[in-house]
Amino acid sequence: MIYISRRETFAASHRIFNPALSDEENETLYGTCANKNGHGHNYALEVVVKGEIDPKTGYVLDLKDLKRVMKERVVDRLDHKNLNLDVDFLRDTIPTSENIAVAVWRELKDALPSGELHSVKLYETEKNYVEYRGE
Amino acid sequence: MIYISRRETFAASHRIFNPALSDEENETLYGTCANKNGHGHNYALEVVVKGEIDPKTGYVLDLKDLKRVMKERVVDRLDHKNLNLDVDFLRDTIPTSENIAVAVWRELKDALPSGELHSVKLYETEKNYVEYRGE
Amino acid sequence: MIYISRRETFAASHRIFNPALSDEENETLYGTCANKNGHGHNYALEVVVKGEIDPKTGYVLDLKDLKRVMKERVVDRLDHKNLNLDVDFLRDTIPTSENIAVAVWRELKDALPSGELHSVKLYETEKNYVEYRGE
Amino acid sequence: MIYISRRETFAASHRIFNPALSDEENETLYGTCANKNGHGHNYALEVVVKGEIDPKTGYVLDLKDLKRVMKERVVDRLDHKNLNLDVDFLRDTIPTSENIAVAVWRELKDALPSGELHSVKLYETEKNYVEYRGE
Amino acid sequence: MIYISRRETFAASHRIFNPALSDEENETLYGTCANKNGHGHNYALEVVVKGEIDPKTGYVLDLKDLKRVMKERVVDRLDHKNLNLDVDFLRDTIPTSENIAVAVWRELKDALPSGELHSVKLYETEKNYVEYRGE
Amino acid sequence: MIYISRRETFAASHRIFNPALSDEENETLYGTCANKNGHGHNYALEVVVKGEIDPKTGYVLDLKDLKRVMKERVVDRLDHKNLNLDVDFLRDTIPTSENIAVAVWRELKDALPSGELHSVKLYETEKNYVEYRGE
Repeated sequence: MIYISRRETFAASHRIFNPALSDEENETLYGTCANKNGHGHNYALEVVVKGEIDPKTGYVLDLKDLKRVMKERVVDRLDHKNLNLDVDFLRDTIPTSENIAVAVWRELKDALPSGELHSVKLYETEKNYVEYRGE
Repeated sequence: MIYISRRETFAASHRIFNPALSDEENETLYGTCANKNGHGHNYALEVVVKGEIDPKTGYVLDLKDLKRVMKERVVDRLDHKNLNLDVDFLRDTIPTSENIAVAVWRELKDALPSGELHSVKLYETEKNYVEYRGE
Repeated sequence: MIYISRRETFAASHRIFNPALSDEENETLYGTCANKNGHGHNYALEVVVKGEIDPKTGYVLDLKDLKRVMKERVVDRLDHKNLNLDVDFLRDTIPTSENIAVAVWRELKDALPSGELHSVKLYETEKNYVEYRGE
Repeated sequence: MIYISRRETFAASHRIFNPALSDEENETLYGTCANKNGHGHNYALEVVVKGEIDPKTGYVLDLKDLKRVMKERVVDRLDHKNLNLDVDFLRDTIPTSENIAVAVWRELKDALPSGELHSVKLYETEKNYVEYRGE
Repeated sequence: MIYISRRETFAASHRIFNPALSDEENETLYGTCANKNGHGHNYALEVVVKGEIDPKTGYVLDLKDLKRVMKERVVDRLDHKNLNLDVDFLRDTIPTSENIAVAVWRELKDALPSGELHSVKLYETEKNYVEYRGE
Repeated sequence: MIYISRRETFAASHRIFNPALSDEENETLYGTCANKNGHGHNYALEVVVKGEIDPKTGYVLDLKDLKRVMKERVVDRLDHKNLNLDVDFLRDTIPTSENIAVAVWRELKDALPSGELHSVKLYETEKNYVEYRGE
């Protein structure tokens, strides 16, 4: 059993707010993150897949395939987008890093040509990340 | 003469488009950067000040002062903001990195307690930056 | 269950030596790390908290709260300090990264407003880190 | 129980191909990685050791010792080398990151003066890594 | 006048040796860099272009264009290649970073759609770079 | 003319204070940087040398030589040291980054086997650096 990882980046905007709450409640809860006109980040997404090494190729999974799956299923749908408005798989979701990571897990889980999804790590800045392992 | 530098970061959203042009022209010109609902970045701002070393302090400029000036004049006004809508010193400006760097230069130029502004470097991503030296 | 992480930095000095041993023994054991007048590092502290996502907020824990707890309980007491002399929670401790990480764990363990402390990772340089998980 | 880690780098060349396959099959399987004259990387190797803290030293393992073991057993034999031709412990191995990580694990497993090998993480680029934990 | 920069990476192998010298002279001169079977690096190439900001676009040069030119003229011809054997614009050149940077400058100098080439910076490792400004 | 650069790191402690001033004046001037028992940093030193490429070697200066000169003249004398007490070439100097960079310039200026010293850049943290060019 071995773990392989690929990191991709995307640039997106969002506004953290819960539409079920009032503007005042949102501002109390989220502070500047609830800014009405939004703000944004360069996100980094690190996906880890686990599996056995195929003796014929020496690979668990060709990283070119992992890159392609990440791009088609996730990165192209998030990059240069507004996470509140433009992304179908985030509809009705408060776009916190926690919720985005879980949503990315769901998009990738059954899309890998080989190996098994082990974790999705999402950096919002160089100082903050969340990690989801399907637990 | 010596150069000192301080790096600060801010998270902002923007949409690159020229309001004097049609939507089609903007999309041709800017592609995904013109996405109507915007996108965003973690910007890094690196400011360089040049000056003589004060023999009493060993400093050109106390970095705590440079940090404070950057924060008050620039970073607090850009962080968690929409660069098209929320920033007075970017009004009527297409918020490309080039234009933001020049605007930051203007905000900082006369605000330093000592030393002289040498350059403003703005990273939009880890792979792209612009640098303005007042030339 | 999801994991969230926050990274903070602090600049501190220390001298690695065991007061129960002679100077010669300390030098044999620790080499240049035992230099009498000390040396120092830019430490990076990465704290991971695990928990359930609160559906109301989309957060396990507001990172502003984690940042505040880290600052008050740990970073402000370590930053610009001498780890042998200035830090009460390191008293009678050889200030190796191992011992600092365990001491930081103890300071943070019961101070989190929500979620559970999962790990404390301490980078002494870009090349060396220790990680403590309370095991 | 605590974990300590040391990172070292080496510069090496390789060609990914399986000698049991034809040139056409290799090119289909590996694309540009199978380029006949090879290509190369700055690899980063991150080794994690777990153990109890020795109360006399405050260390699990002196990082100078871990550095020395990594250097003698692995880094000096890989640095400025061709991984297909120059490395005895990679003989008859397709030099993918997966296979290199497993081979490094075998070289280090019984060579540590104290503590137990926990994981070997190998970065081929800033975007790709594999991790092997002896599972 | 403003400066814009784009960073791209490529993975390549090389052997540093001067074919006009004997094997012994090459080994004396270059040490392990002259290893017969080669070694390799993840190179990072940082290109800086200077120019005026176009008031219509807010750009000196669209970074997508700079990226495309770098890719077509340089990166695709260097990535996953052997710099001694596979690259026409390095023929009869000892592939030191100095010589590669000058060769890259020549390839890019007249290929920019707007602006003027200011510098070519080539990182061989995180610790070493060369910079050529056409002087 | 081409520029080559080498980066080395060292870990040191210091206390910023001017012995000609009172404790109160030092604390007003330097704040926590004047902490009596000191603090410390992982410094990164980036030295740039300019020169012509030697057609026989393809080098301005063999980086192994630059590394050796940096190590012998500067890094070994600063690493794991107290910059107020342990370093002869910093005697009677307030150990600010500005003053250290100028002192390093003086140590290196006439020690290079070929090429000419162009600049000394000293990072005190990832966010702060000073650069001295002998102007």
